[in-house]
Amino acid sequence: MFREIIKNVKDMAPIVHNITNPVTSNDCANILLSCGASPVMADDPIEAEEITAGSDSLVINLGMLNERKLLSMFSAGKKANELSHPVILDPVGAGASRFRTDTALRLLEKVSFSVIRGNASEIRTLCLGNGHMKGVDADAADRVTEDNLAQAITMAVQLSKCTGAVIVISGEIDIAADGSKAYVIHNGHPMMSKITGSGCMLSSVIGAFCAANPHMLLKAAATAVCAFGICGEQAYDKVEKNGEGTASFRIHFIDCMSRITPELLSQRARIEVINSNDALNND
Amino acid sequence: MFREIIKNVKDMAPIVHNITNPVTSNDCANILLSCGASPVMADDPIEAEEITAGSDSLVINLGMLNERKLLSMFSAGKKANELSHPVILDPVGAGASRFRTDTALRLLEKVSFSVIRGNASEIRTLCLGNGHMKGVDADAADRVTEDNLAQAITMAVQLSKCTGAVIVISGEIDIAADGSKAYVIHNGHPMMSKITGSGCMLSSVIGAFCAANPHMLLKAAATAVCAFGICGEQAYDKVEKNGEGTASFRIHFIDCMSRITPELLSQRARIEVINSNDALNND
Amino acid sequence: MFREIIKNVKDMAPIVHNITNPVTSNDCANILLSCGASPVMADDPIEAEEITAGSDSLVINLGMLNERKLLSMFSAGKKANELSHPVILDPVGAGASRFRTDTALRLLEKVSFSVIRGNASEIRTLCLGNGHMKGVDADAADRVTEDNLAQAITMAVQLSKCTGAVIVISGEIDIAADGSKAYVIHNGHPMMSKITGSGCMLSSVIGAFCAANPHMLLKAAATAVCAFGICGEQAYDKVEKNGEGTASFRIHFIDCMSRITPELLSQRARIEVINSNDALNND
Repeated sequence: MFREIIKNVKDMAPIVHNITNPVTSNDCANILLSCGASPVMADDPIEAEEITAGSDSLVINLGMLNERKLLSMFSAGKKANELSHPVILDPVGAGASRFRTDTALRLLEKVSFSVIRGNASEIRTLCLGNGHMKGVDADAADRVTEDNLAQAITMAVQLSKCTGAVIVISGEIDIAADGSKAYVIHNGHPMMSKITGSGCMLSSVIGAFCAANPHMLLKAAATAVCAFGICGEQAYDKVEKNGEGTASFRIHFIDCMSRITPELLSQRARIEVINSNDALNND
Repeated sequence: MFREIIKNVKDMAPIVHNITNPVTSNDCANILLSCGASPVMADDPIEAEEITAGSDSLVINLGMLNERKLLSMFSAGKKANELSHPVILDPVGAGASRFRTDTALRLLEKVSFSVIRGNASEIRTLCLGNGHMKGVDADAADRVTEDNLAQAITMAVQLSKCTGAVIVISGEIDIAADGSKAYVIHNGHPMMSKITGSGCMLSSVIGAFCAANPHMLLKAAATAVCAFGICGEQAYDKVEKNGEGTASFRIHFIDCMSRITPELLSQRARIEVINSNDALNND
Repeated sequence: MFREIIKNVKDMAPIVHNITNPVTSNDCANILLSCGASPVMADDPIEAEEITAGSDSLVINLGMLNERKLLSMFSAGKKANELSHPVILDPVGAGASRFRTDTALRLLEKVSFSVIRGNASEIRTLCLGNGHMKGVDADAADRVTEDNLAQAITMAVQLSKCTGAVIVISGEIDIAADGSKAYVIHNGHPMMSKITGSGCMLSSVIGAFCAANPHMLLKAAATAVCAFGICGEQAYDKVEKNGEGTASFRIHFIDCMSRITPELLSQRARIEVINSNDALNND
């Protein structure tokens, strides 16, 4: 599947509208450019709808949320739905404040999302309708490991059935699932959690991959996750070889995305596919 | 001309006030520091005028525009005009939304600009009073090539005559023109369009070069454009030699600006000068 | 002291709440992650207090101040004081506008700070209640050198006695002082002033070090300053060896922080301790 999905991104060079946070917006813009897309970051209600109309997909990221951006998220989300643009939700910090949790839940009511990507704590918060997260990194107790993988897949499949969206849970093991199928992806490196914005960047890249592949959202999201994990592995290899640290990791990471090929994906992907109903029954 | 212009920047270490967007403000601050200037980024109406008064030039960048910043742009622009500070306009996204286009046109009415720098789609929008841009990257149809170079120069010269500002059009070929003279600059590398903020950074650097060279704005702007293009070429050479990607390109690019010398500019500049009236007659 | 302070940071992995500016927030988040902390950057009044309650320390940074963030600074500051979380003030641009100066002074009245870190111009403004700064870099006249070191220490000690906070003055020579003791730190490199955010990053790292070492704030702040200076020295060594520039310096700098060890600190620290009362008497 990798060849077609990557080719479609390069051919279309989709415009991805991001309503996002200032901490990682530069990283998101750069990783979008690196993978062949074109970023636009407008977040004011006065123009959000119009910018979305001129774009190919919309990424709503709850980082550094405020009430001004909230209006833009709802109006742009509605417009993107009207135009059948893929819409991605990154519920940054859902569970860390009532405002983030409530906003995420209200967005789920009003906007139809194509993909929802978060860490395990954020996705759990969306499932339960409330959360207990501190800060914006996943609670240790929530991290997806081999031991709780089956439960995590079940959570993703159930949330997908509820929302109609592909669900991506990022962590040591990544999951991308819809109501009928789940991909479990073993690529990546722990150093990805030592740079800010790795989650935000993934959500933006999913926005690009889905814009160019609207008829296979699950595969597009899973490919983006795989590509991310492989970039993390290759970046770490360079860091270790050169005796560098986390800032160099970030540079190598984006470098790798700018040179990604279907061949590299095929060689390095560690991805397995599971029937969602099996996952539900095994739980 | 390079020697004098660069020397004046290093000697003055101008304070450049940027009212700009959060996506690329870090890059703008870093490139200003790298070329010997001192950045200040205040954008709230409560202090914008006072910060401008303590600075040497003002750069107004329409990226991620909102109504709060709008007030600052008008008040700081007015104050900078009163104090005869060079004022630079970067009409990011003019043509991509009514709000950006209208704001750019209203700023042209109320503020006297020293330099306006945009991509071909943005400059065309200012000329026509409306635009059809999607996203914030130049439409393919608008890109300046050898084939439409004469028309692009004419557009720049005419907008300069209308506004009194030096006009810089960035792209594969760069143009810097006033009502009587146009520089055509062939430096640069396509990878510059694969990092976010290359346009914003150039506008900020023009702000620094003009602050230190207020009596030769066209030469200052053209020198900044040349320096940028040469940094792009040298950064790409390193990327290619090392098998790197777009993130490393950005690092090498700013590195190169921090080591730029008049000698390097003289050796590498590919710049030609054209009489503006000839350009108008040939069109 | 280094061993214990660094160990406590790694063991606790403190969550540091930053109310800060978009220019350097990405750098602050990355340096916090690099030293073993977890950043959260919420700045909206609707959630600032709740986010602070879920964090371990609070860093208030006045860069790109606006009235919305002001409310968050006061409410989060109050909550952090109630919970006895360390609170750090970085008075970016105090002296550069009436708004920044007044806000800094009002925060000093309403919030009890653990550490205040600024350049010499900013700290002088807090002492005098007004300032004459242009831009956000220290005035040349204010820079701490061997010649005016005694006066600078006196200024720090006096402000510490007034406010109850540890005072850190950053510059060519760094000072960290409370009412009874002052550390004078000779680490660092001038290139640190050629990247944006070196001051903001230091304030955030002080927030992490103090969160994990709340019973020895002065030592925690001095250790952070030492670590910063050593990272600057090592980053410059790499830049010089490789013929690089300021952007590479920033990468090496954060890389170095991600690999810092108590051993490196012990080997490279150039720190002397002075009795504060001696400093006052000598003045």
